[in-house]
Amino acid sequence: MTQYAAPTSDMKFVLNDVLQISKYSNLPGFSELSEDLLEAIFEEGGKLAANVLHPLNHSGDKEGCTRHEDGSVTTPTGMKDAYNEYREGGWQGLSFDPEYGGQGLPHVIGLAVSEMMSAANMAFAMYPGLSRGAANTIYAHGDEDQKRTYLPKMIAGDWGGTMNLTEPHCGTDLGLLKSKAVPVGDGSYKISGQKIFISSGEHDLTDNIIHLVIARIEGAPEGTKGISLFIVPKFLINEDGSLGERNGVSCGALEEKMGIHANSTCVMNYDEATGYLLGEENKGLRAMFTMMNEARLGVAMQGMAISEVSYQNGAAYAKDRLQGRALTGPAEPDKPADPIIVHPDVRRMLMDQRAFTEGARAWIYWTALYGDLHDKSPDDETRQKADDYMGLMTPILKSYLTEKGYWHATNAQQVLGGHGYIQEWGMEQFVRDARIALIYEGANGIQALDLVGRKLMKDGGRAWQTFFAEIDDFIADNDGEAELAPFLEGLKTAKARALEATQWLGANAMQNFNHAGAGSMDYLNLFALTCLSYAWAMSAKTAIQKKDEGAFYANKLITGKYFLERILPDSAAHLEKVKAGADTMMALEADAF
Amino acid sequence: MTQYAAPTSDMKFVLNDVLQISKYSNLPGFSELSEDLLEAIFEEGGKLAANVLHPLNHSGDKEGCTRHEDGSVTTPTGMKDAYNEYREGGWQGLSFDPEYGGQGLPHVIGLAVSEMMSAANMAFAMYPGLSRGAANTIYAHGDEDQKRTYLPKMIAGDWGGTMNLTEPHCGTDLGLLKSKAVPVGDGSYKISGQKIFISSGEHDLTDNIIHLVIARIEGAPEGTKGISLFIVPKFLINEDGSLGERNGVSCGALEEKMGIHANSTCVMNYDEATGYLLGEENKGLRAMFTMMNEARLGVAMQGMAISEVSYQNGAAYAKDRLQGRALTGPAEPDKPADPIIVHPDVRRMLMDQRAFTEGARAWIYWTALYGDLHDKSPDDETRQKADDYMGLMTPILKSYLTEKGYWHATNAQQVLGGHGYIQEWGMEQFVRDARIALIYEGANGIQALDLVGRKLMKDGGRAWQTFFAEIDDFIADNDGEAELAPFLEGLKTAKARALEATQWLGANAMQNFNHAGAGSMDYLNLFALTCLSYAWAMSAKTAIQKKDEGAFYANKLITGKYFLERILPDSAAHLEKVKAGADTMMALEADAF
Repeated sequence: MTQYAAPTSDMKFVLNDVLQISKYSNLPGFSELSEDLLEAIFEEGGKLAANVLHPLNHSGDKEGCTRHEDGSVTTPTGMKDAYNEYREGGWQGLSFDPEYGGQGLPHVIGLAVSEMMSAANMAFAMYPGLSRGAANTIYAHGDEDQKRTYLPKMIAGDWGGTMNLTEPHCGTDLGLLKSKAVPVGDGSYKISGQKIFISSGEHDLTDNIIHLVIARIEGAPEGTKGISLFIVPKFLINEDGSLGERNGVSCGALEEKMGIHANSTCVMNYDEATGYLLGEENKGLRAMFTMMNEARLGVAMQGMAISEVSYQNGAAYAKDRLQGRALTGPAEPDKPADPIIVHPDVRRMLMDQRAFTEGARAWIYWTALYGDLHDKSPDDETRQKADDYMGLMTPILKSYLTEKGYWHATNAQQVLGGHGYIQEWGMEQFVRDARIALIYEGANGIQALDLVGRKLMKDGGRAWQTFFAEIDDFIADNDGEAELAPFLEGLKTAKARALEATQWLGANAMQNFNHAGAGSMDYLNLFALTCLSYAWAMSAKTAIQKKDEGAFYANKLITGKYFLERILPDSAAHLEKVKAGADTMMALEADAF
Repeated sequence: MTQYAAPTSDMKFVLNDVLQISKYSNLPGFSELSEDLLEAIFEEGGKLAANVLHPLNHSGDKEGCTRHEDGSVTTPTGMKDAYNEYREGGWQGLSFDPEYGGQGLPHVIGLAVSEMMSAANMAFAMYPGLSRGAANTIYAHGDEDQKRTYLPKMIAGDWGGTMNLTEPHCGTDLGLLKSKAVPVGDGSYKISGQKIFISSGEHDLTDNIIHLVIARIEGAPEGTKGISLFIVPKFLINEDGSLGERNGVSCGALEEKMGIHANSTCVMNYDEATGYLLGEENKGLRAMFTMMNEARLGVAMQGMAISEVSYQNGAAYAKDRLQGRALTGPAEPDKPADPIIVHPDVRRMLMDQRAFTEGARAWIYWTALYGDLHDKSPDDETRQKADDYMGLMTPILKSYLTEKGYWHATNAQQVLGGHGYIQEWGMEQFVRDARIALIYEGANGIQALDLVGRKLMKDGGRAWQTFFAEIDDFIADNDGEAELAPFLEGLKTAKARALEATQWLGANAMQNFNHAGAGSMDYLNLFALTCLSYAWAMSAKTAIQKKDEGAFYANKLITGKYFLERILPDSAAHLEKVKAGADTMMALEADAF
């Protein structure tokens, strides 16, 4: 059976040492965040994750959710109790506005906590994760009445929330949606249609579920310009805030999936359900993007989190399993064989994973911190830069961290050999669970298209130019630091390649948009390697300063050096592939496939 | 639901056009193989695969195998009928010596047929696949009496066969095994012990199952030098060849696995079971390698086969699913959206897969042909070269084709978006099934170690030197062919990088064996890209000659060009990683993991 221990030393290294969040104590939320409070949050969150959530991970996968004849859904044994502990611990409102019952701590702390929850039990963490996304959307687009009605209950964890976008014939292309909304005359609408792949769509964890649903108001324009967003509660809310009658929304079926079995993925049927417009008519997609952008960062985190937990279990097995002898001679001659961690190719898999996970953690926390600066900084320029960075990084993080997280979970499984393929060892579940993260919240190819088709060109390329200039400044500022030199060299190389790819796209994509699409995924991966190089350079700088304080920092430098030697070299191939363009890729007639 | 159609045009292109197997008609087995016979074999085999085996692929996965209280195991509904069709069609003996009832056709034809069976239903194909491996081992190491007793029945498909190596505490390191054999005095032995992960260990498809089991004879040396191989039939054989009493071997449990649910993966208990020595005492591991080398080629084929069938289904979905518009303007303006195959990033995934699969097919068929030349050529030099090539290519093919096959199945699943994650669409099963191929028959890391630790250095490096010289000759012989030039250029680059990596290992690994281990997987992948470059150069040469005969050949050239542009660039990164050596990789203390 698998184990999980929250990697709090690594988490605090990023927050306290690399990002130095104490610098931001002038901002709301940050001011209350002492190192002691952070310590307490991570300790308690780590305990919940390790002792309550993780023990349910495997059993929840085996048991799955159950839909009953009346359309109700029960979660696997133990989930409801675990959710109650989560709720009572106040975890749901950690980063939410105190005005509605939250604790107002920075988003980056909320994201760090979600790392622990997702690593321990991804299927569980999706229930409160979707609810937070729905609450944030209401917070951003709801009127005061809607906020007062829904947010306190959602923030307390008493009510859940979902997002309902996909229909059988439309996933990526939401302009094709058929669900309709008919105005009743009292300000509310009757919503009808079918939604599929709705995570946490129906369950027994909360008293109510607040569905956010996109639909087309009768007579609205076709395509994406006629999409509106609605609040559709499972139970209608009475004037006094108590739960009223059951709304016309129900779970028609549970999907049988490859993984995340403990999360209920529902077909949701809306049959003249009462809905309330959230935000403006026909501007629903824009509002939905609030939710999706936050969700995308959460999904990126799932990729990293599964990499972390699978690494922990792969490493534990590698230290324990005796098989063969070290190539350089027996390491433990008194035992029948050496632990397999002596074998370089086993190390390769673990070090690949470690160098990815630690770098990715610094990068995604860094990005989330900009989310806080965007919301809270008094400085216009900082807020603009933060907005630029969030827009630029979100698709890159979502695609890169989920793809590599999945791939690394596969490698951790490989460390166990045949046992990795057996269900009771738990490693294959990490792979199956991680697989969805490449698909949902916009398949990774869509992220790549968002990057090259939208984010790069936005505001004349201000976002990437600002980021590249920041890298140049970092390199210049640290010039001459001998121990940091290889990291600066790696960063310089990565950034130069990313810049060359950007310029190639700039010069070629306007003549043939397919060149942008053809290179989009390699471009995204090249950009990601640049971000990771930057994350590692920042981490190395800190580790060098603290290297006399213990092996932790020396090990950080070794892992960073491994990144430079063994992961960064892929950037050259990505550049070459971007520059190959679309001609050969698009040359075959469709019927030749 | 998924579909499968045997890619017979591609298969015949490799065999008839690229490899020109008609050239070998002077050899036994090849002489009977007219183009008409090949056509008939592929047509009938393709029908069996598409119409009988593939329809059971998904249902077999869902139902799985069932172990009953008496230890008997039943395969999923329909499997027994399907096996009977397979058996009655004479497929099991296709490439086997006619002396024992086989049809004596070349091994490469047997391998091509196994491509169809593995693609259509991998879990099914494992039953006859393991049996063939066991029969070949008896053929190679058995005495005449053993051959007469077992082979005709096994070749007819009436009896199955298995290989029993792994024990709970030893997989890779078989020297640790505990199963023991006690001589009875009549030439037979009593075998006791427990084996795990035994594919096809117990089932209802055949009247008898011939287990090949490694164990240590009482008093034999410790380690690998004391391992012997035994024949342990499920039912003992009477003098007259009829089935006698049940032997002391039984299935103790079925493993619950990530995939290949329709294949029975058994814990096998041997309780003083009667066994007969196969080959010499204490030379069991060498004999077992006969079986494992063949099995490794078969496993490599599984990787490629799953890539093929998942490609077919990904491509079909991409042509059918309407979502979004082409970046260059609507492709089908009269429809609500364009088929997603217009999107470059969807093409990328499909073209990656196609360029891999077609190149890999040429490479593995080419290698299997050397298996025939090794067995049948009258020329000593040819036989030696064939033996060298088989030894060199087997680990490379096993690791590269299974890893990439798995990865490409994941990409094919990605093409379907959310539907790819849902069980009823069948794509996620391909991923789960393909996953085992990276693990069994020697985990891929072991293949890489076999390559750098054994195969490269054998006979002073004769195998790789011969292969590289063959590539040089091919490049020189075709110098000046304008249309072939990019393929020759790609091949030259790949080979130069592989040579540089080989030289780096030669110069560094002797001082520190860990350098060889640290670079082993990247070295293997670099060598594989060299082999694929050669396979594509040969294929392109043929396609250029035939390009006026239809779009098939022009498309082949496009796909080959895509390989050069989009897959081959990875070779530079592999070289760089090999040259990074072991120092950083091995620097952390084990307890830092």
